[in-house]
Amino acid sequence: MPSANASRKTQEKPRELMDAAEDYAKERYGVSSMIQSQEKPDRVLVRVNDLTVQKADEVVWVRARVQTSRAKGKQCFLVLRQQQFNVQALVAVGDHASKQMVKFAANINKESIVDVEGVVRKVNQKIGSCTQQDVELHVQKIYVISLAEPRLPLQLEDAIRPEVEGEEEGRATVNQDTRLDNRVIDLRTSTSQAVFRLQSGICHLFRETLINKGFVEIQTPKIISAASEGGANVFTVSYFKNNAYLAQSPQLYKQMCICADFEKVFCVGPVFRAEDSNTHRHLTEFVGLDIEMAFNYHYHEVVEEIADTLVQIFKGLQERFQTEIQTVNKQFPCEPFKFLEPTLRLEYCEGLAMLREAGIEMGDEEDLSTPNEKLLGRLVKEKYDTDFYILDKYPLAVRPFYTMPDPKNLKQSNSYDMFMRGEEILSGAQRIHDPQLLTERALHHGIDLEKIKAYIDSFRFGAPPHAGGGIGLERVTMLFLGLHNIRQTSMFPRDPKRLTP
Amino acid sequence: MPSANASRKTQEKPRELMDAAEDYAKERYGVSSMIQSQEKPDRVLVRVNDLTVQKADEVVWVRARVQTSRAKGKQCFLVLRQQQFNVQALVAVGDHASKQMVKFAANINKESIVDVEGVVRKVNQKIGSCTQQDVELHVQKIYVISLAEPRLPLQLEDAIRPEVEGEEEGRATVNQDTRLDNRVIDLRTSTSQAVFRLQSGICHLFRETLINKGFVEIQTPKIISAASEGGANVFTVSYFKNNAYLAQSPQLYKQMCICADFEKVFCVGPVFRAEDSNTHRHLTEFVGLDIEMAFNYHYHEVVEEIADTLVQIFKGLQERFQTEIQTVNKQFPCEPFKFLEPTLRLEYCEGLAMLREAGIEMGDEEDLSTPNEKLLGRLVKEKYDTDFYILDKYPLAVRPFYTMPDPKNLKQSNSYDMFMRGEEILSGAQRIHDPQLLTERALHHGIDLEKIKAYIDSFRFGAPPHAGGGIGLERVTMLFLGLHNIRQTSMFPRDPKRLTP
Repeated sequence: MPSANASRKTQEKPRELMDAAEDYAKERYGVSSMIQSQEKPDRVLVRVNDLTVQKADEVVWVRARVQTSRAKGKQCFLVLRQQQFNVQALVAVGDHASKQMVKFAANINKESIVDVEGVVRKVNQKIGSCTQQDVELHVQKIYVISLAEPRLPLQLEDAIRPEVEGEEEGRATVNQDTRLDNRVIDLRTSTSQAVFRLQSGICHLFRETLINKGFVEIQTPKIISAASEGGANVFTVSYFKNNAYLAQSPQLYKQMCICADFEKVFCVGPVFRAEDSNTHRHLTEFVGLDIEMAFNYHYHEVVEEIADTLVQIFKGLQERFQTEIQTVNKQFPCEPFKFLEPTLRLEYCEGLAMLREAGIEMGDEEDLSTPNEKLLGRLVKEKYDTDFYILDKYPLAVRPFYTMPDPKNLKQSNSYDMFMRGEEILSGAQRIHDPQLLTERALHHGIDLEKIKAYIDSFRFGAPPHAGGGIGLERVTMLFLGLHNIRQTSMFPRDPKRLTP
Repeated sequence: MPSANASRKTQEKPRELMDAAEDYAKERYGVSSMIQSQEKPDRVLVRVNDLTVQKADEVVWVRARVQTSRAKGKQCFLVLRQQQFNVQALVAVGDHASKQMVKFAANINKESIVDVEGVVRKVNQKIGSCTQQDVELHVQKIYVISLAEPRLPLQLEDAIRPEVEGEEEGRATVNQDTRLDNRVIDLRTSTSQAVFRLQSGICHLFRETLINKGFVEIQTPKIISAASEGGANVFTVSYFKNNAYLAQSPQLYKQMCICADFEKVFCVGPVFRAEDSNTHRHLTEFVGLDIEMAFNYHYHEVVEEIADTLVQIFKGLQERFQTEIQTVNKQFPCEPFKFLEPTLRLEYCEGLAMLREAGIEMGDEEDLSTPNEKLLGRLVKEKYDTDFYILDKYPLAVRPFYTMPDPKNLKQSNSYDMFMRGEEILSGAQRIHDPQLLTERALHHGIDLEKIKAYIDSFRFGAPPHAGGGIGLERVTMLFLGLHNIRQTSMFPRDPKRLTP
């Protein structure tokens, strides 16, 4: 090991750290020259997470960030962090470290990345402030690999402080805009690491489940030639000498794939909404988890597949991401997410009755407002003990023109929303697959037939009955974890006021 | 089974099919009323692929498209197709079918979807024209579920005809624009079904491999506030009262995730290029399979991971998608894709020497033209017998400003391209992670520092050395299958002249 290090060049040390007196440890610390792939040392870097008593008394190399440093006489305690794990490290004047080296270590800017060689030592008292509680690292060499600037725009310990604690104890927390403006640092917190690892898991579970069910993944274009549903809330793109638009959903393309016999398709991709909504749950760009499926006789065949997919996601998250859930809960406490198997399915009129019983006045063909949606979620939770349910058979009047009417009740439709903790995460329906009925419904909605000609024509050469829906990824992440703002579950959120970073 | 059918309503039959004479089979055929989820019959629909001798003499229900129909006296032969599988069906005057029913069956428009009840019968002579060669279906009931219009804009049998055969035998093939204009039908061919099932497999194998390697999936925004690399070839979006741009790559965001300690990330998503290139391999919107990874000491750690990921994709395709590969080969014959393990890595100067030996004149710091790229691919194939290789250490002068220079040879860089059958499918590099060097290189390239401030600032708070690259999904599909136009491997391609469907 020492040989690998000996061959690495170190640049000059900050002048103030140089002591006129001889420094017997001067080769053992410093700022490394930039890693430009000059060489391939065969040094093994050990993961912080693997620093346990099993490694006691071994000499190891670790690359990590300096989370904190605290000098104390002839010693300096560092906390070294790697993703969500951290370990205490000690630089103490002795055989390996000079007082200059201790001073150097104490002065490394927080968030700098260092390569450290040290001996793993078992500690007698658990180190409560670190994830590696049973050992500490006795540092023999320390080199700065990438130096952080001295002033951080936000402190990581503030960024993971529960708001209640901040308020009660008068300690700093970090507001959302500061977080988002400095997202590279905010994403380093244990909470952010957990949120986005879990989000990666949602995508993985979604696809894993659907591939097992025989679905095919498709890629749909985001630049489209016509704003299909009337043209509201759509972003315009300059496309060479013409204008084009950003797709508000992949629905037309999913449906074309059904008409092209793919039978069961899904896609994961960005969805764009030019809505000037500045709420806790709207983004102008979000990730859609979309499903479309041909069915035999009843759209409930599709509803069941979608609901089961969500249930498999919830189960998978609770099985595979328990650490992440608990990490987020430390900062944002919340009840575990509850769901039933099979999923509770209520009809719209049943939901309406529950709301009316609770004193809400609503017409039969009126859509749910956000407060009523949330209230209904609470009522459902009380009555059925579930955070996830399906509301089926929406009034035809409040759904898009392509929604299949319910032949048994012409004021109803074969459409549904799904809810998590009282907020909508999916909207879907049986789609009209008959060009003649589709034309009638489009006319009824006052839609210019010329603009949706290609859409209607897709159904002219034999189309199977089909249904589908679109899930908002950031909403699922937010509501599963019981968070309160969708900007917490979008890495680089876009809203009417934010386009950076 | 009959009871499930008896309960289904049938609409009036086309008048010309009604015979004044009594029709003892009149309940056994017709056009079904539109499926609006009126009921949930417990009928089981058997897959065409499952119609084998094991099912001989069983009565089954099948839903499929009428691929062809051919009346012959008192009989009508249908070919029923379901995705890439098809079976012969026979409607013959007898106990179950009247002559009116045979006439009805013979007159169903091609590509209509039908529900058929029939007995599976073993045949004595293999039916060469169908995938189900050992059985045929003796039809007892037939109902049209979705009627296709009588004139199809293209014939499926023309659309799967090898071009050579079309030319030699003077038979029709379908040109690309007709295919794309009528994509819903073109996608029904066995070739298209195979191409896009295999493409779905590429995405799946890409993610499966990376998740096993410990990568995290990220979602990066497509609407961005500034056109980072100088602003050329970028689409402009109207964003409320301002302008925004469509991301040409997720690179900045991948790098921010590395600076935010995610260590190994990937993303799959649309990439936009406003290039007015009308070639066989350029699209204005394509799907990027992107990777970014922090490394310890040498960017080859990353190169090896990327190359291995591609090798795992090639292996997975050859193992799991052999049927699809052979289906495509029938129409577009091509040699099986060859690759080495570990992947061949040549340095740029070695490639240059091979080209010069073949008579090409090129400067040391000149980029590869498309013809030279292809020639080098042929030379490499001859010498090393591989269709996949890495070209490493490109001249610094031909790479973007953020590319890490090679400290041992300042005219070279730590950058690489990867090639399949002589065409580039990935471009990547070690990125500069030091804000000072990054600033110098940007100035050298004449880039306005103000526009890339956020990018440079991402590296100010400690950044690990890292490298990555972006793979074009459609190119990988095209070149793996030996196809010759990228529009064959994009479901709904976008180029300067095409925005629909």
